[in-house]
Amino acid sequence: MPKTITYTARVEFGDCDPAGIVWFPNFFGWIDAASRHFFAGCGVPRWEETTRTLGVIGTPLVDTKARFVSTASYGDTLQFAVQVREWREKSFVQAYRVTRDDAAGETLILECEEVRIFGGKHPDGRLRALPVPPEIRALCE
Amino acid sequence: MPKTITYTARVEFGDCDPAGIVWFPNFFGWIDAASRHFFAGCGVPRWEETTRTLGVIGTPLVDTKARFVSTASYGDTLQFAVQVREWREKSFVQAYRVTRDDAAGETLILECEEVRIFGGKHPDGRLRALPVPPEIRALCE
Amino acid sequence: MPKTITYTARVEFGDCDPAGIVWFPNFFGWIDAASRHFFAGCGVPRWEETTRTLGVIGTPLVDTKARFVSTASYGDTLQFAVQVREWREKSFVQAYRVTRDDAAGETLILECEEVRIFGGKHPDGRLRALPVPPEIRALCE
Amino acid sequence: MPKTITYTARVEFGDCDPAGIVWFPNFFGWIDAASRHFFAGCGVPRWEETTRTLGVIGTPLVDTKARFVSTASYGDTLQFAVQVREWREKSFVQAYRVTRDDAAGETLILECEEVRIFGGKHPDGRLRALPVPPEIRALCE
Repeated sequence: MPKTITYTARVEFGDCDPAGIVWFPNFFGWIDAASRHFFAGCGVPRWEETTRTLGVIGTPLVDTKARFVSTASYGDTLQFAVQVREWREKSFVQAYRVTRDDAAGETLILECEEVRIFGGKHPDGRLRALPVPPEIRALCE
Repeated sequence: MPKTITYTARVEFGDCDPAGIVWFPNFFGWIDAASRHFFAGCGVPRWEETTRTLGVIGTPLVDTKARFVSTASYGDTLQFAVQVREWREKSFVQAYRVTRDDAAGETLILECEEVRIFGGKHPDGRLRALPVPPEIRALCE
Repeated sequence: MPKTITYTARVEFGDCDPAGIVWFPNFFGWIDAASRHFFAGCGVPRWEETTRTLGVIGTPLVDTKARFVSTASYGDTLQFAVQVREWREKSFVQAYRVTRDDAAGETLILECEEVRIFGGKHPDGRLRALPVPPEIRALCE
Repeated sequence: MPKTITYTARVEFGDCDPAGIVWFPNFFGWIDAASRHFFAGCGVPRWEETTRTLGVIGTPLVDTKARFVSTASYGDTLQFAVQVREWREKSFVQAYRVTRDDAAGETLILECEEVRIFGGKHPDGRLRALPVPPEIRALCE
């Protein structure tokens, strides 16, 4: 079983749109925070430090797909359960299961699966995918 | 060929993250604006009006997948070319091709494909998918 | 002493700009959440309910001033101490003191003072200031 | 008369809150874009370049005050007229008048006045106010 780390977010009034439900791009904001929270929880230092030690400036997104199952609104507390589902040579698959605890039990809000890379900077300034650093992988498995 | 309507967004300093590139959830913010801009450009009125006339409160997202090809940064101007690629009974597929005009030509930034519904409110307050209103489909084809 | 209720926010990577510090509009996002959190903590129900019972749709902002003292960055946890400093006939003054707990003690990040109203909808659809509802004031003092 | 440069923003559905009006922190997002747009319009290069040439990483906010006069909603187009009202030794006052063009004429939405600095990085990593660079002031007057 891969390591799972859960990120918690409160939905605020300003996260919701005129229909009264979370404006969907805000879910991706929390997902990005949950991704970083996963690495921080595994002991991976800030990206400024990994820039110096490994050349890794962060984990840019390459692909994402998400399935929205139920809506959420302000006052809700959401749980983002995060795993790395697969390690590839130069990328990894990070997955999120987002739920809300209700009186009636747990409600599934959305599921998301991403491909991310460990990004470095080319001498020409452009971003490139670095081989997955074994030091980071060892912390996260 | 389906109708294509293009939405233009400028990337601002505050849209970028500490790596100096667009923070990816902001792409979904522009995509949502481009989705609404497509319907407005086809002559579909504001959702307040369709709420009264058709019971349609908006076009909530059900599924999305996106592929990020190049990064963007502040000062860039992005073009979001939007189409409805498929009309189903109770949903539709909306697609986005996002490019930047460069000295060297056109750079592909990302591609995104979504499933959305025309959302109505159940008497119990919950969101549900309405049959695609023929009035709206006729405007958009 | 007026009642004080504290709202806590974590600063995330995506809250920061290319200079590596919190993009200032995000402080106002947390301030708005802290304002609502104050009322919720005092027992004021959701605005949908007060719309029905008191005609109050929320607490729109009329005036704000803020003084930024220190920067913050991702990984920081911020405390927003919130008070209503003054009750007027048709408005109130809400104040925020934002700090970060550091190894060395407490660092002041910013101070903000706002004038807000209890907003209702005119029959013509426009927003107007309602007299401060005594039921709400009683809960918050 | 100080130089005035106008920034235009469209209000999108996702910029609005459950009350159907612009969520106020979004006004500060546009104000920050309008501030940068003023400097770009005066010929000031990107902050990466001024970091190298002048040590200026950007124009962090020190103080702001804003007065909200009318609400705005999606579909509106807003004009942000920007000026530098005063140049001090180590800071400057930047002001914004935000209006919407309506059938009936021009509606004032809000006014904002800020104190900003030209920020540099201390050897210890902290932000500090640099003397206003005469090269930049000459471009902007």
